[in-house]
Amino acid sequence: MSVNEMSHRGKAFLSIIQKAEADLRSLLNIPESYAVLFLQGGATSQFAAVPLNLCTTNANVVDYIVTGSWSDKAAKEAAKYCSPKVVWSGKGDKYTRIPSFDEVQQSPNAKYLHICANETIHGVEFKDEYPKPVNSDAVLVADMSSNFCSKPIDVSKFGIIYAGAQKNVGPSGVTIVIVRKDLVKNAQPITPVMLDYKTHVENKSLYNTPPCYNIYMCGLVFEDLLAQGGLGEVEKTNIKKAGILYEAIDKSGGFYKCPVEKSVRSLMNVPFTIAKPDLEGVFIEEAKKEKMVELKGHRSVGGMRASIYNAMPLAGVEKLVAFMKDFQQKHG
Amino acid sequence: MSVNEMSHRGKAFLSIIQKAEADLRSLLNIPESYAVLFLQGGATSQFAAVPLNLCTTNANVVDYIVTGSWSDKAAKEAAKYCSPKVVWSGKGDKYTRIPSFDEVQQSPNAKYLHICANETIHGVEFKDEYPKPVNSDAVLVADMSSNFCSKPIDVSKFGIIYAGAQKNVGPSGVTIVIVRKDLVKNAQPITPVMLDYKTHVENKSLYNTPPCYNIYMCGLVFEDLLAQGGLGEVEKTNIKKAGILYEAIDKSGGFYKCPVEKSVRSLMNVPFTIAKPDLEGVFIEEAKKEKMVELKGHRSVGGMRASIYNAMPLAGVEKLVAFMKDFQQKHG
Repeated sequence: MSVNEMSHRGKAFLSIIQKAEADLRSLLNIPESYAVLFLQGGATSQFAAVPLNLCTTNANVVDYIVTGSWSDKAAKEAAKYCSPKVVWSGKGDKYTRIPSFDEVQQSPNAKYLHICANETIHGVEFKDEYPKPVNSDAVLVADMSSNFCSKPIDVSKFGIIYAGAQKNVGPSGVTIVIVRKDLVKNAQPITPVMLDYKTHVENKSLYNTPPCYNIYMCGLVFEDLLAQGGLGEVEKTNIKKAGILYEAIDKSGGFYKCPVEKSVRSLMNVPFTIAKPDLEGVFIEEAKKEKMVELKGHRSVGGMRASIYNAMPLAGVEKLVAFMKDFQQKHG
Repeated sequence: MSVNEMSHRGKAFLSIIQKAEADLRSLLNIPESYAVLFLQGGATSQFAAVPLNLCTTNANVVDYIVTGSWSDKAAKEAAKYCSPKVVWSGKGDKYTRIPSFDEVQQSPNAKYLHICANETIHGVEFKDEYPKPVNSDAVLVADMSSNFCSKPIDVSKFGIIYAGAQKNVGPSGVTIVIVRKDLVKNAQPITPVMLDYKTHVENKSLYNTPPCYNIYMCGLVFEDLLAQGGLGEVEKTNIKKAGILYEAIDKSGGFYKCPVEKSVRSLMNVPFTIAKPDLEGVFIEEAKKEKMVELKGHRSVGGMRASIYNAMPLAGVEKLVAFMKDFQQKHG
């Protein structure tokens, strides 16, 4: 029987979802005090779920650090359910940096502090250090959609981590939420049952029919990441991949440019431009002839973007780097 | 490139989702005045989305006909966002019938009338006739999760039709919503952006990353249903399949029993019991030896249930009927 035919309540699928959870727990060393949920609706659904579950009224203050389009969207959605305060925004710098944490004036009474750990469109990423909420009752919440499982993280620093699976760990259509169990209390009365963490914790992600195939595929990826030696090894490869790409940009004598501040450049999404903008369309067309596709920057920012998630091998990045050097020689 | 690797905004995936929509429009003869959406979160998410999109305040009255567990859940979820009235409930009859429409005392001011077209657990199904809202401004809303695309329907009788795909048209993880475009106006301010129909109509189901593989599979199923000759042909086969199974039950001299009133027995889900309840476990075990699985009734009602969706061939039902006769001879 294929996973597409199984009952989600049958033993066969139960063993699939339980193994997926156990392997993810191993990979990220997730403490027992956290629940792991396999949900639907993307990070965008979590933009609403987080304030609905962590705030009791819309008078509750919460803090958002806005480092790009995704954290901006998250803050805007939260305004429906609480009083979000943007405590730092990189908009003025076109989202090219992460603040030093003493630049951020947190609210003393905030219920949580929200960050986007890696901004997919702008290519800025929080590195090993994460800001700590000043309110000792508050928790740090992170959207990790685009760098989830790309490197080890200390889960215990977070109250909630959420991530659409489609970048590093599976096909689109499943969203992973890691939530500290003591935070799963009474959601606001207007919370749709599908956005209430309690629903999914109590039903072990099986309240209604889950995206079975998608979860099965995530499980296969978790197995593979463990077989590679875990996230420490995965990170080493990701550092190498991003390293040669950023080096090619920085050593191009200004032909290519990456706008992002060096210390916070993403290991996953590498945005870059060409000094002569007319060449960008040519670059994308010629790359396509070499079977390198999806290099166009997000429609909101333009330029180019190389998304080099876990599944992109080092050889793929090496090929891109060689192409970039050739292209520069031809057109520079 | 596999559908699991494509950008959901690339031409390749656009042609997949557009073809899927066009084929579904052909199958159901969906008028141009309706939008077709491919969403996430199951029918359970639509239980909230419907009142959030059709009601402006929680004082708005809406009507629910409750014919089983699913319409009961839908009415309960709606109570968070409006004032649902259960205008008929089959609970007293253990959900074994559909009301005649003059039994139902509709609210004259209701914004909509909600039904579940086929109750998966209880096996009761609305046949060709659907109730009409008495309020001429109101619309009929139907959860068709478990009989979607099992037979032709007249879409123009409905304001909204929604259906989890996982029964007849694809893998779990995609929810199809067919909504009359003039109903897509201003959702309540507390509506999560992912439950706001306007989000998905304006972005043609691509506001955030959709479940690409799952939509691709739905598209293949739509192609196949068209190739079979469309839903008229599909219905003929479904009538034949259900017919021989109900006949076997009814002609068993009381050994097997189906509790559902004959005129509204589902073509999709056939619940039945054995007069000697101790034999039910034996039945399920012996059937499993013959490779017939998932025959246990839903945990909330017990007994047996044969779900004979589109993908179950006539030969599969014939095999079950033969097994049932043998079983009765052995144990009757």
